[in-house]
Amino acid sequence: MTYLGSTFEEVCADVLRKVTPSDRERRNTLKLADRLTNNVMVVAKEAGLDVKVRVEGSVAKDTWLSKEPDVDIFMRVPTTMPRESFGTTCLEIARKATEGFKQIERFAEHPYLESVVDGVRVNIVPCYQVERGEWISATDRTPFHTDYVKPLLDETTRGEVRLLKKFMKGIGVYGAEIRVGGFSGYLCELLTLNYGSFMKILKAVADWKEKRIIDYEKHYDGRERELEKIFGEPLVLVDPVDKGRNVAAAVRRERLDEFVIASRAFLQRPDSWFFTPDYIAPLKVKDLVSTLKTRGSTIVFVKLGGVKTVSDILWGQLYKSQRALRKMLRQNDFDVIRDVTWGDEEDLNMFIFEVEQRFLPLVKKHFGPPIRKRIECKRFLEKHVGASHTISGPYVEGSRWVAEIKREYTDVAELLNEKLRDGGRHVGVAHLISQAIPNSLEVMVNEKVAGLYSSNPKFAKFLTEYLEGKPRWLVHE
Amino acid sequence: MTYLGSTFEEVCADVLRKVTPSDRERRNTLKLADRLTNNVMVVAKEAGLDVKVRVEGSVAKDTWLSKEPDVDIFMRVPTTMPRESFGTTCLEIARKATEGFKQIERFAEHPYLESVVDGVRVNIVPCYQVERGEWISATDRTPFHTDYVKPLLDETTRGEVRLLKKFMKGIGVYGAEIRVGGFSGYLCELLTLNYGSFMKILKAVADWKEKRIIDYEKHYDGRERELEKIFGEPLVLVDPVDKGRNVAAAVRRERLDEFVIASRAFLQRPDSWFFTPDYIAPLKVKDLVSTLKTRGSTIVFVKLGGVKTVSDILWGQLYKSQRALRKMLRQNDFDVIRDVTWGDEEDLNMFIFEVEQRFLPLVKKHFGPPIRKRIECKRFLEKHVGASHTISGPYVEGSRWVAEIKREYTDVAELLNEKLRDGGRHVGVAHLISQAIPNSLEVMVNEKVAGLYSSNPKFAKFLTEYLEGKPRWLVHE
Repeated sequence: MTYLGSTFEEVCADVLRKVTPSDRERRNTLKLADRLTNNVMVVAKEAGLDVKVRVEGSVAKDTWLSKEPDVDIFMRVPTTMPRESFGTTCLEIARKATEGFKQIERFAEHPYLESVVDGVRVNIVPCYQVERGEWISATDRTPFHTDYVKPLLDETTRGEVRLLKKFMKGIGVYGAEIRVGGFSGYLCELLTLNYGSFMKILKAVADWKEKRIIDYEKHYDGRERELEKIFGEPLVLVDPVDKGRNVAAAVRRERLDEFVIASRAFLQRPDSWFFTPDYIAPLKVKDLVSTLKTRGSTIVFVKLGGVKTVSDILWGQLYKSQRALRKMLRQNDFDVIRDVTWGDEEDLNMFIFEVEQRFLPLVKKHFGPPIRKRIECKRFLEKHVGASHTISGPYVEGSRWVAEIKREYTDVAELLNEKLRDGGRHVGVAHLISQAIPNSLEVMVNEKVAGLYSSNPKFAKFLTEYLEGKPRWLVHE
Repeated sequence: MTYLGSTFEEVCADVLRKVTPSDRERRNTLKLADRLTNNVMVVAKEAGLDVKVRVEGSVAKDTWLSKEPDVDIFMRVPTTMPRESFGTTCLEIARKATEGFKQIERFAEHPYLESVVDGVRVNIVPCYQVERGEWISATDRTPFHTDYVKPLLDETTRGEVRLLKKFMKGIGVYGAEIRVGGFSGYLCELLTLNYGSFMKILKAVADWKEKRIIDYEKHYDGRERELEKIFGEPLVLVDPVDKGRNVAAAVRRERLDEFVIASRAFLQRPDSWFFTPDYIAPLKVKDLVSTLKTRGSTIVFVKLGGVKTVSDILWGQLYKSQRALRKMLRQNDFDVIRDVTWGDEEDLNMFIFEVEQRFLPLVKKHFGPPIRKRIECKRFLEKHVGASHTISGPYVEGSRWVAEIKREYTDVAELLNEKLRDGGRHVGVAHLISQAIPNSLEVMVNEKVAGLYSSNPKFAKFLTEYLEGKPRWLVHE
């Protein structure tokens, strides 16, 4: 089959045109960054603080994408400032420096301020002014990252970084935040330095096996074997400025896999749709209902209200709770086909479990000990012979005792309602999620979700994509 | 818990009284055996055949059970008689010798005649008159077995053999025929010789592990390790008259396991009910229907007509077909909880499959290759992306491609009807069973079996026991 679409080069040239900021846009962004840098310095000085303020991140390195600048302003404080006041003091300064603009308090290891100034997102982040290697807070490395990357990039390689970032955004693997578990901007820059170009990255990634280790600065020259033991993650990129840190530590296996398969698909059939997530038209409600019916499976929607916390903590707790509930369902013999977590980061969070069947038979085959183990057998028989929970047996099958006993839960919705009634801490639901459950829990099965679907376009889009199931860019092979 | 029932010795003394033939019964049986031996000799002589005729088996060894004598008369023919005429000629002689009595032609390796004379079952069996070790037909060893065992038994040990046989009959493991797959009378005698008494046998058996090897005549003295390689069966008892034969070759793992667990139970709580299968009162039809309903599982009855063949061939084919159908159901994702074969050896044979659910959802999770295998991935995607059988996906989960596809069969009854319509040869149903299917197949689900249940008391008893599930003697621990 001959593919008659665009070439790799054509698609990339086209995308690069769109993602490279114009001179005017670049000037405006830098002007804004300078202005805010100055504001922060002035406010800090007024507060009697000796801080160094500098623009860091993609704007400093000129690797940001047109129309999506993210201005990161770092205030480096003396190491004499105690950790307790470090966050709050700096937050106060940031607030004053962006007074009058929309402000959102964010949290990584410590709080920082996100504000929107002239339509541009600005993060004002504190860190300690340390010597390399003497890190105190997690953000202390950032200025070193800027200083390391900036002189190694030129106009061409910055373009390659932009292509890679845009590609990753398009396929949904960009961003080191917990919700995504993907690739950070710094990681994109290092991958580009390591492989040389966007095309070379894709070609390498398409062949990545289970574990991939990159040690660009050869910190472990001659001791590469140690690396596998030091870092457990599937992708390891040793930080050039800190040999003890894996820049790809936040990348989850799923995002890595998606990057691999998307790289293969793009190399085989380059197309601009990889870079631009298409708008998916949600199914009409009546089509949703009939789609759910013909699947024959049971989709259970476990809906709860908003949880007041920062995004990374929210998603960490959501994912942990999802895993716990999946495990609980499987322990109760419900075959989970697929499960996902969704939320609007405001007043709605939802776990979705698709199971083979809503109802299981009352009878359950319960395997006991092998008959050669006499003591265990005695205990098994004492428990099950003639017991009220025993439906058939015990009998011997395949040289082990078997009893057919009554199943505790035969309805998946009842099981979830029952286990979550009190928040579900005992089945492993995370703390904050558990707190939100009692007052807001709603378990809906299949078409019972139609009401929410009609009233919430974001959810409708999400569910339509879920039902489709395949990556948007996977059109054909 | 103190057990206040009878002691082992009391129960055994009681049973032994019942199973030991009285002098009168013994005299009558021997008289009958002599008469028939004589008949066979006369008829053979008339036919110009030089044969040796002798009573063999339990009557010859005086190990038969009162009220259940089985008179085995063996006619040893010269090795010059060709194998082709061996069976038919001897059958002819046997027919004449028992003229006027009920006659049934049986078949082991070659045909033999079973007849009922004065209410006693008499088998007239041909074999070759060979030197030990120069076996031609499978029955040639029998006279050697008689000659070996007889002098080694005395009145006491003959009683122990009778107890063992009766116990095995009671728990359902007696008989080397394929339908049972249990212990032969000769095997019972050898076990008694080896262990010394019924009690010592039970104590040893209660501790049997996966594999048990007994070489009573020490044919393999110093070479015991070889034995494990030569004989693959879980129980091996090297034939004293033929070191190449395992006397327990016919014993299936299930029967062995049942013998083990019953031995433990009897030692712990000796009771005469182990020796006498109780009559189980079948459920009333309305109780059957409600029992089936509350179980929640689906029991499928695959009924077919009679198959004209000898018992061992019939059951060999039934079991083979059962295994094939079980495998086919599992391949189609139906979880088989339990499956059994039942037949009245006349005009009714039946496979019973209990599955978790009658209906499966249309959607089925189909696991593809790990993403590191690029060529397999390409093939998988070509097959499933955008295909009409694909419901969701493909997507990546756990580093492998997954597609949610349409299941071929969602109704277990439809699946069985479909696969068996033409006899089911292609799914592994055995030849004779397959031939009987097209004209007699009926697939019934759950309470649809009520009609047959009401009209067939044997089946009603069988199904009631099936639903109970546990060995009759397993009352409590």
